[in-house]
Amino acid sequence: MSLLVCVPNRDNSKLIDKLQQLLPDTDIQIWPDITSFEKIEVVLAWNAPSSLWSQLPNLKLVQSYGAGVDSIDFDSLPEGVQVARIVDTSLATDMAEYVLTHVLAHKLRLSQYIRQQKEQIWKPNRAFPHNKVGILGFGQLGQAAADRLLQNGFEVSAWSASEKQHNKVHCVHGQEGLWSLVEAADYVVCLLPLTEETTGILNRDFFSKMPEHAVLINVARGKHLVEQDLVDALDAGELRAATLDVFTVEPLVAAHPFWSHEKITITPHAAALTCLNTAIHQIAENVLNVASNKEIQHLVDKRKGY
Amino acid sequence: MSLLVCVPNRDNSKLIDKLQQLLPDTDIQIWPDITSFEKIEVVLAWNAPSSLWSQLPNLKLVQSYGAGVDSIDFDSLPEGVQVARIVDTSLATDMAEYVLTHVLAHKLRLSQYIRQQKEQIWKPNRAFPHNKVGILGFGQLGQAAADRLLQNGFEVSAWSASEKQHNKVHCVHGQEGLWSLVEAADYVVCLLPLTEETTGILNRDFFSKMPEHAVLINVARGKHLVEQDLVDALDAGELRAATLDVFTVEPLVAAHPFWSHEKITITPHAAALTCLNTAIHQIAENVLNVASNKEIQHLVDKRKGY
Repeated sequence: MSLLVCVPNRDNSKLIDKLQQLLPDTDIQIWPDITSFEKIEVVLAWNAPSSLWSQLPNLKLVQSYGAGVDSIDFDSLPEGVQVARIVDTSLATDMAEYVLTHVLAHKLRLSQYIRQQKEQIWKPNRAFPHNKVGILGFGQLGQAAADRLLQNGFEVSAWSASEKQHNKVHCVHGQEGLWSLVEAADYVVCLLPLTEETTGILNRDFFSKMPEHAVLINVARGKHLVEQDLVDALDAGELRAATLDVFTVEPLVAAHPFWSHEKITITPHAAALTCLNTAIHQIAENVLNVASNKEIQHLVDKRKGY
Repeated sequence: MSLLVCVPNRDNSKLIDKLQQLLPDTDIQIWPDITSFEKIEVVLAWNAPSSLWSQLPNLKLVQSYGAGVDSIDFDSLPEGVQVARIVDTSLATDMAEYVLTHVLAHKLRLSQYIRQQKEQIWKPNRAFPHNKVGILGFGQLGQAAADRLLQNGFEVSAWSASEKQHNKVHCVHGQEGLWSLVEAADYVVCLLPLTEETTGILNRDFFSKMPEHAVLINVARGKHLVEQDLVDALDAGELRAATLDVFTVEPLVAAHPFWSHEKITITPHAAALTCLNTAIHQIAENVLNVASNKEIQHLVDKRKGY
């Protein structure tokens, strides 16, 4: 059996070296230089072309090279092929710290003071008094962020597709629940999985319902956001500011209006970086699971898409 | 009896209106337009000239218009004149939040990403792994900051003039204790009172003992820091960066090198702003205490200077 590594536009030499060390008996092929289509039972994939799957008659598992699986087109997968993802518990810790840090940075006006420093303006202001955070998505990452915010005195609401409960977080679901959260939140944090239903959820209609002093933080996927709608809403004063870690096209293209927008803080998809070591061990384990017909770890529900 | 308000270079009309409302029977005089030197028993002071005290034969109390009393020259005060300060418990909460926010901002490279955004550079980096904070000064503010940092997973040491104990903070004192803290800290936070002993404590010798990756945060007083030494130490790579909320001369003068230094983040003495309402009530109470020979609140130990 073979493992095919299909992670385009990236130097994968370190990844492949380490995988070969952990899997000395496994033949590793590297896309697009496939030597035997028949032998491939597992593909390690990130932004792999949808046309690949039907060329692999013995494919059993698509292992995502990350926590998300939205780069995989589920409709193009043959029946019976399973999908797994990387689960890195330190991702949740890092994500929660990123969310807390950027909520606090907005509360304490960090970008305003950096701008004032550049312009040599001395003008103290009180920190904003607001402390209501609305989290979109209440899975592992959303819950970790909520816990960290609660510990730091914030009031937290969370919106999720299915009904959830939490003794300190106000949980809502459905369209009505979404609008009640958005209208009351001082900070909206998007931590949703990217599905058909959540694509473009952060749009002009959404922004028009936010309080004018509110801030958007998107740390999920670029496609949750209709990018031009955000620029228009910020320019119209419908919300105060935004921090974005993810973008429709990454790296963010040179001409993009986000680079120079005064109300937008961008970070280069750095909120939670998967640890290479953790990822490689999980990939190797799943390759061995497939080879020995054992249970695959961290399977994705293909109907839900996460 | 009279209250003299001596808070130069500031619009005090709101302050005086509110004080008069709370003290309808008290004569309020405004420096430098003194009408009766003999009647003045209390001075509300901030940056008052030292020559003032000896002109007031019946002075009993100098009430600082803030938490600090370092703008008062104790040596020039006649025997028997007491000094009180404002104690605003929300100051400790605000200060702790400022310290946490700026430690996290350095840990997660916020200024680096803001610079990269300006230059349209896409370059993700992991957050710094460092989590040791050394706090200089372990009074009310230092303890509030320590508690908040401990809650957020940081390891905290604290240095104070007298020996102190805390079950989760590593407490040190003396010169040896200071150097052991400085050499081990990833973040040094100055929350000391300004005294003869602590003036200029943040100097080149101090910086040379900090790890190269370490960060300085000064939220106490500008005179704790030898400003040129910081610029030299940053330029020599002896520490990574600094966040400063206080300066020898405030507002920071136009030509000052801090404004444009890439490794320095400045905020305009905004870490913890005294609530006008809290201050006015404490001032009025102490004026009434003097008038009725009652115990004065929030007295300062003139020998210690805080």
